[in-house]
Amino acid sequence: MSENPDAALGGKSAVELRGLLANGQVSVSDVIAVHEDRIARFENQVEAWQVRDKAFVERQVMALESGPKHMRGPLFGMPVGIKDIFDTEDLPTAYGSEVYADNRPAADAACVARLREAGAVIMGKTVSTEFAYWKAGKTRNPLDLTRSPGGSSSGSAAAVACGMVPLAIGSQTAASTIRPAAYCGIVGFKPTRGLISLAGAKALANSLDTVGVFGRDVADAALIASVMIGDEAMMTLEAPCEPPSIALLKAPEWQSADDETLATVHAAAQRAREVASASVFEGTVPDAFAPLAQIQTRIMAFEASRELAHERRAHRDRLSLPLRELFEQGDNISAADYAEDMKMRETCLRELDVLFGDADVLLAPSTHSTAPLLENGTGNPDLCRAWTLLGLPSVTIPCGTGEDGLPLGLQIASRPRSDHYLLQIAYWFETLLDTSE
Amino acid sequence: MSENPDAALGGKSAVELRGLLANGQVSVSDVIAVHEDRIARFENQVEAWQVRDKAFVERQVMALESGPKHMRGPLFGMPVGIKDIFDTEDLPTAYGSEVYADNRPAADAACVARLREAGAVIMGKTVSTEFAYWKAGKTRNPLDLTRSPGGSSSGSAAAVACGMVPLAIGSQTAASTIRPAAYCGIVGFKPTRGLISLAGAKALANSLDTVGVFGRDVADAALIASVMIGDEAMMTLEAPCEPPSIALLKAPEWQSADDETLATVHAAAQRAREVASASVFEGTVPDAFAPLAQIQTRIMAFEASRELAHERRAHRDRLSLPLRELFEQGDNISAADYAEDMKMRETCLRELDVLFGDADVLLAPSTHSTAPLLENGTGNPDLCRAWTLLGLPSVTIPCGTGEDGLPLGLQIASRPRSDHYLLQIAYWFETLLDTSE
Repeated sequence: MSENPDAALGGKSAVELRGLLANGQVSVSDVIAVHEDRIARFENQVEAWQVRDKAFVERQVMALESGPKHMRGPLFGMPVGIKDIFDTEDLPTAYGSEVYADNRPAADAACVARLREAGAVIMGKTVSTEFAYWKAGKTRNPLDLTRSPGGSSSGSAAAVACGMVPLAIGSQTAASTIRPAAYCGIVGFKPTRGLISLAGAKALANSLDTVGVFGRDVADAALIASVMIGDEAMMTLEAPCEPPSIALLKAPEWQSADDETLATVHAAAQRAREVASASVFEGTVPDAFAPLAQIQTRIMAFEASRELAHERRAHRDRLSLPLRELFEQGDNISAADYAEDMKMRETCLRELDVLFGDADVLLAPSTHSTAPLLENGTGNPDLCRAWTLLGLPSVTIPCGTGEDGLPLGLQIASRPRSDHYLLQIAYWFETLLDTSE
Repeated sequence: MSENPDAALGGKSAVELRGLLANGQVSVSDVIAVHEDRIARFENQVEAWQVRDKAFVERQVMALESGPKHMRGPLFGMPVGIKDIFDTEDLPTAYGSEVYADNRPAADAACVARLREAGAVIMGKTVSTEFAYWKAGKTRNPLDLTRSPGGSSSGSAAAVACGMVPLAIGSQTAASTIRPAAYCGIVGFKPTRGLISLAGAKALANSLDTVGVFGRDVADAALIASVMIGDEAMMTLEAPCEPPSIALLKAPEWQSADDETLATVHAAAQRAREVASASVFEGTVPDAFAPLAQIQTRIMAFEASRELAHERRAHRDRLSLPLRELFEQGDNISAADYAEDMKMRETCLRELDVLFGDADVLLAPSTHSTAPLLENGTGNPDLCRAWTLLGLPSVTIPCGTGEDGLPLGLQIASRPRSDHYLLQIAYWFETLLDTSE
């Protein structure tokens, strides 16, 4: 699996492919063929896909190639993977659960419809954990087949990391975009909560659920996000004129992170200070923000126990033990306690200036460690919980490796609705940390 | 239609029926038979129902009557109506659109599952406007068949007002619970945004969509809401020890309300002051809050144009003109302008204390007038927009009549997450305004 996805089209980024497709240097069929080949070669080892249908892909290619040229959207001919938590009108959608093995939705999720409208080719549905919660699917980490790709967007992250598709979509309720992207050594981007429509996505916890995207670099992630958000400006990334003001705020959940993980983030901050003259503040999260990861955990349990009311009632015996335990945890939280937790969130949102201080962006490790062994589950989500709860846009970019040679991620967040700015900072960091020169 | 739904069970409130069912004075079959009879007598005039299936109702009754007594939930044997915007696994779900005429969802909406879990009998699906937006369905106002029942939860409001069911559920994105309840002379309650799961409800605008409930009095509305929220305490209503502190804050959208509508609200406030020594402040909404109704309109257009991306792409020709115009309106709003509007909302939410001042609750008319003629549409939603945008819990209770003899509504709102308190204040007002003594 260490083989470089090479000099051919398979190694090209989505932005590069877009250019080649736009000026006719390559055809949609060429692009799809290269990615179909990657899938054919590696899927039996990686198992990123829940649903694949080659005839369905061919029909899309034919429709695109025979369509009018002036109608070509920004993702014309681009292969994408769709986490199997999003409804698709022409492919089965199982939400990672045997309960929905035969489910054929009547409509596409709204974000899938936008991808199609933009000319994307749906390569299939990627593996999700059960209802985007805990129970792992079959997918392995393409960088080390004994490791987890992370969850819950396991298949989307693995498929992008393996070069099967340049772009894929997922979701995040706790850490389900940032974590698998970090474990797989790619870029994951979770926009401000609510910015991409969740219509047709299976709900896990409505106050937290967010559509996320995967690409091999920041520009690719920005491209697919911009289409779903409907913000063309977001496609264009330029490093900021001024280096950003950066805060590293130690939170309680940092204590259980590996030393090498923390060292990597500190090294990135140091590089920003020394090489690019960024101002860096190192400190501790304000007291009011310290319990947010725990609050996120409770809100998720409370809401999940309600969102999945139908499955609890009609299919209890077909749900995993961890999911049933989550429901029990939610049932044991009173409506009054939930209201208190939500008020704490609202208080913190009112006081975001206290959290950010003078900083433009916050830095943190994306995960506690490199990807865990498959038998140890999909990894610890704690380092993402607080920012997901606050709905902050966040991004992970590859940032060094652990002793085991596997990738670590740098997590960057900014204020709500500063998504374009965040992507530009991530792009700036990406260049700063690029050691391939 | 003026016939009183009388001394029989048909005239009983849900709370009364619950008592009779609990101590075995009546059977589930008795309760259902009485309501089936109301439907049989009036449905051809009112047309509240989109989907009815008597055999399906009978199966539910048999299952409930043969089930173990200790498993009986708080809505055991209670007939309810479900707005056809919520998925049901065993009844068609068309979202008010011919596009989904043949749609058979794979699962119940989460709130529907909770009603079933509590022992409710689903009497059928009630008429919704197209995708809970503008285009009216077939339903007429049971109090005057030449009038609109209001939208978008047209059938649910009409069915409760007509005594076909004691309880029904709907949704609100602008005014779709409060307005039809007011036009039909019943109680409508829209809890704090997000408090009832929207899983399995067709999305119109995710930042605004809220599940709402209908009953003939406040206690009934509290009963069904408490089940879906999962907050048992909410079932118990007691008038507050202290009379509330009340604010009537004139907003720009009050200018187009009928004089009789405004007079009724002022009279209610005066009665609260004179009879119950409540403190009443009359003023104008603070400047920052004045544009909220317009902001709500823009946010709704922007989000709807994205939530319904699939229908726009795949079924454009089967969508109504008003809906397509809404999408166009949304397309003309830039992502940056949307972000500004959302920030304005967030600023207002931070400054709710400025809005409420010393007041516990805000009062306003529920609608601009009594129910409009059918040919004039489902009515003006402007008086509900601002509070929906802020996610405030709000309730409408019947409050006098217009010159045409049709009901007017008093709209009451309180701070987010004070839902139980709001219901108790509404209960207090209900008693205060009861002129039947």
